[in-house]
Amino acid sequence: MKNTSMHISYPSSQKIYVKGKIHDIRVGMRRISLLDTISVENGAQKREKNAAVVVYDVSGAYSDTNAAIDIRQGLHRLRETWIERRRDTEKLPAFSSACGRERLSDARLNDVRFPQVNLPRRAEKGKSITQMYYARQGIITPEMEYVAIRENQQNEELGIATHITPELVRDEVAAGRAVIPANINHPEAEPMIIGANFLVKINTNIGNSALSSGIEEEVEKAVWSCKWGGDTLMDLSTGENIHETREWIIRNTPVPVGTVPVYQALKKVNGEIAALTWEVYRDTLIEQCEQGVDYFTIHAGLLRAHLPLVRRRVTGIVSRGGSIIAGWMAQRGEENFFYTRFEEICEILQQYDVAVSLGDGLRPGSIHDANDAAQLAELSVLGELTQTAWKRHVQTLIEGPGHVPMHKIRANVDEQSLRCHGAPFYTLGPLTTDIAPGYDHITSAIGAAQIARYGTAMICYVTPKEHLGLPDKEDVRAGVIAYKIAAHAADLAKGHPGAQVRDDALSKARFDFRWRDQFGLSLDPEKALEYYAAAHLGDESDHCTMCGPNFCAMKLTKKMSQCLLQG
Amino acid sequence: MKNTSMHISYPSSQKIYVKGKIHDIRVGMRRISLLDTISVENGAQKREKNAAVVVYDVSGAYSDTNAAIDIRQGLHRLRETWIERRRDTEKLPAFSSACGRERLSDARLNDVRFPQVNLPRRAEKGKSITQMYYARQGIITPEMEYVAIRENQQNEELGIATHITPELVRDEVAAGRAVIPANINHPEAEPMIIGANFLVKINTNIGNSALSSGIEEEVEKAVWSCKWGGDTLMDLSTGENIHETREWIIRNTPVPVGTVPVYQALKKVNGEIAALTWEVYRDTLIEQCEQGVDYFTIHAGLLRAHLPLVRRRVTGIVSRGGSIIAGWMAQRGEENFFYTRFEEICEILQQYDVAVSLGDGLRPGSIHDANDAAQLAELSVLGELTQTAWKRHVQTLIEGPGHVPMHKIRANVDEQSLRCHGAPFYTLGPLTTDIAPGYDHITSAIGAAQIARYGTAMICYVTPKEHLGLPDKEDVRAGVIAYKIAAHAADLAKGHPGAQVRDDALSKARFDFRWRDQFGLSLDPEKALEYYAAAHLGDESDHCTMCGPNFCAMKLTKKMSQCLLQG
Repeated sequence: MKNTSMHISYPSSQKIYVKGKIHDIRVGMRRISLLDTISVENGAQKREKNAAVVVYDVSGAYSDTNAAIDIRQGLHRLRETWIERRRDTEKLPAFSSACGRERLSDARLNDVRFPQVNLPRRAEKGKSITQMYYARQGIITPEMEYVAIRENQQNEELGIATHITPELVRDEVAAGRAVIPANINHPEAEPMIIGANFLVKINTNIGNSALSSGIEEEVEKAVWSCKWGGDTLMDLSTGENIHETREWIIRNTPVPVGTVPVYQALKKVNGEIAALTWEVYRDTLIEQCEQGVDYFTIHAGLLRAHLPLVRRRVTGIVSRGGSIIAGWMAQRGEENFFYTRFEEICEILQQYDVAVSLGDGLRPGSIHDANDAAQLAELSVLGELTQTAWKRHVQTLIEGPGHVPMHKIRANVDEQSLRCHGAPFYTLGPLTTDIAPGYDHITSAIGAAQIARYGTAMICYVTPKEHLGLPDKEDVRAGVIAYKIAAHAADLAKGHPGAQVRDDALSKARFDFRWRDQFGLSLDPEKALEYYAAAHLGDESDHCTMCGPNFCAMKLTKKMSQCLLQG
Repeated sequence: MKNTSMHISYPSSQKIYVKGKIHDIRVGMRRISLLDTISVENGAQKREKNAAVVVYDVSGAYSDTNAAIDIRQGLHRLRETWIERRRDTEKLPAFSSACGRERLSDARLNDVRFPQVNLPRRAEKGKSITQMYYARQGIITPEMEYVAIRENQQNEELGIATHITPELVRDEVAAGRAVIPANINHPEAEPMIIGANFLVKINTNIGNSALSSGIEEEVEKAVWSCKWGGDTLMDLSTGENIHETREWIIRNTPVPVGTVPVYQALKKVNGEIAALTWEVYRDTLIEQCEQGVDYFTIHAGLLRAHLPLVRRRVTGIVSRGGSIIAGWMAQRGEENFFYTRFEEICEILQQYDVAVSLGDGLRPGSIHDANDAAQLAELSVLGELTQTAWKRHVQTLIEGPGHVPMHKIRANVDEQSLRCHGAPFYTLGPLTTDIAPGYDHITSAIGAAQIARYGTAMICYVTPKEHLGLPDKEDVRAGVIAYKIAAHAADLAKGHPGAQVRDDALSKARFDFRWRDQFGLSLDPEKALEYYAAAHLGDESDHCTMCGPNFCAMKLTKKMSQCLLQG
């Protein structure tokens, strides 16, 4: 593993830290400074200050020029003292899972293993330690205050009425309407919140497969995803050294990390689905809990009774986890053990505050299959499981589709909210048509923006390579930006306080021909600058290449401004 | 001008011609043939035929391997005999516009001029010759039957109930709810229809500017736009040799061509806005009518009284045409002459059956300015002008925004429909956020899909270079595909008959791992193949690179199929 410097820099931007009022915390934000507006009035130059814009920042220490980054050390363990001070967890003397111990003692893995060993932490016997539990006790944790602060983007001068308060965060987490994925063994992650009353979040998927990439590449992709704005990261590795790859990723990722544990469990039984057992799966859960995975996708809602409903479909089952457990049920003639063992699963998760993301094994994989009986039958079971999880204070997300035509999108949110008691919805897209492979970041951003507008709390990105191959770094970037667009468009439509500040600042910069500020405020400053620089043919201080100097509408508007003022 | 072969080929596809029943016409369509589905049942191979899918095709003769393409000759004049047979138009002995005559006789232009001279055709005195006029007389023209046939995409075997009949077309055109842009001087164009009850159409913009490209490049871009599916094409040239560039484009373009005539009129007065006169503009209209432009954007609804409303905006006026006429009003202290002369404009347009696209000079250029008083005030005037145009049987489109957050999109369609009496709506995007320059094909495809779903008939594409520079060919492709996605997603959501046939066929091919068919059915087969080929690492007959052979959900579904059938 090379010790690459992975510092992230954003133009015109500065890392700032906003201090907590309840707790001794400091929340990293990005401050984008702007140039003055210069105009000419009665022959005299006039300057007007433009207040800096402070935006949500998921890049953690990577964008702090004062922070030392060493991926062999991992990130600073931000939440460690917060967790210790609660005095309800214990540091274990060794890893509890057989797999965790084996991998650690296997000398053949010395070269690929993360160099530091952090022994795991677990709830003390009989103690509840989840954010949901604390919230229900009326406790505002440092995590809750942290997310409340970072949700408030603002124009530095005007400010924004702080609608997102620590109390609101606590109430939403207590009610199950929001989730703060925060495994006590991933103290490096900066707390964030997933819920309909907060900024829409995006998830990115990375991970090696039997056919692909190495550990270093995966760590780089994780940081790269954070650079562009990924709020959480799922490691979907199915290839070699899953355990070690995950360790490197978790130790170096400032956002929550999710997995689908059955992928690794299946590897452990050499891919033989019928050989999967609860014992293997359970050990995998514990192994991953103790590494610090923040949320698990578990396909516990797909029951034997649902399988006949799949017959009418064009694309059958397209969820990998769903197809594994369906295959298991078909081959063993038994009920889904994620379902039958769900209480035991929750017992494990609650000891580490791992959130459960109830997988939609029957999500539609084509327009034809959208909102069908199979999908809705599973959704009802997810609602039942939500209540089981909540009994144990396990934070719960509900996963959703998939492929859905626009007129069926809203029904997904409404049905989910109703059947799953308001638990946050987390959808893959949805893709609004099947006919554009190579462009599914777009087919799905169209659906994601709408489903988020109607209340979906987190949208899982899709890259241009969906259905065709594994994404490379440029695909990750394209997917993340498409989803940041969808999420932000939804924040605007939902009227999230402060969301429009950035649009207004960028549009004013556009009207002023402050190109530097347009780039600084862009979701992808590098791409905007690249296009602009390629087209730049001379002085563009008062027009741009698109229309040329004589056809610039904004230039003409300005010339008229005196007249306009007179009416 | 090189005599490039510009043939277009689509994989697995064949150009077919569907014959008319009323008229002696043949309508070009694209037939995508599919492979058989092969499955194994009780150890025996089973084959199932998959019916070919016939889709709408805008590529004209370019995708007909039997057609000779010579851009120095121009395309076959498909509609010439249809027009002649109506005996209500006359071939003129010379061009009527001063500009048209000057350009033709200027020897310095010999090298850039299109080699053929086609003298123009015009309505006989006192005759009405627009498609709207015919429709109101109860006449089904060949143009109407042509569009009815091509609107019906289908699965060749199952067929699709033919909802789009020539009678429906006639009724919609008569009521002003749909427009068939069909200048009698552009007989090369294949008739198409723009209206809420038909397939959603997309427009692409090309055109040189003072800072850019040559004639050949523009013709190539026009054909390129048709290759990817652009339904109409606006030539927004503002650079050198506008007249000649346009002639080359019109003679070689199988789709309707639109322009904003004031751009050329302004060039004629050396860019001095105050020097613009009705006489110069009038001559430009006639010049372009006689070249064969199918629709004109005219910013006739922006009045002096609206100018003070612009003061509150962040981005003022962002429509080029709008800013020109606003500047003219401000400098001259006179009312908009597009408005005061609108009846005379209609007199000219009706003699050639040029449609008017009433421009939204006050469209919002930022989220902040969306749906503001300025925009809505102009929209009401557009409604008044619609009725004026309809009195003269001039087909009319209404242009719309721009930049609109999602929650304000539907109001645009509703207000437009109400204030403009159901005339077809034609919008630019809208962009749903301002903060993603470099990705505005995506920010706007999100808005375009929604506005189209609510009834917008045509959406004008936006390329990734919007706000930053002029699009090159790859940008045109990216913009067209993003908009084909938006349009198709809207067709699905609107339940357009037959729209889902292609999605179902592609998804079935996906489930069968018929890769060839997935590419054939894709909006961009080349891109899909490129991504697939880059990832292709061996035998993928029953899985793909994304998940690898052991994690393929669809493969697993198939293994279970026996079990599923038993329930």
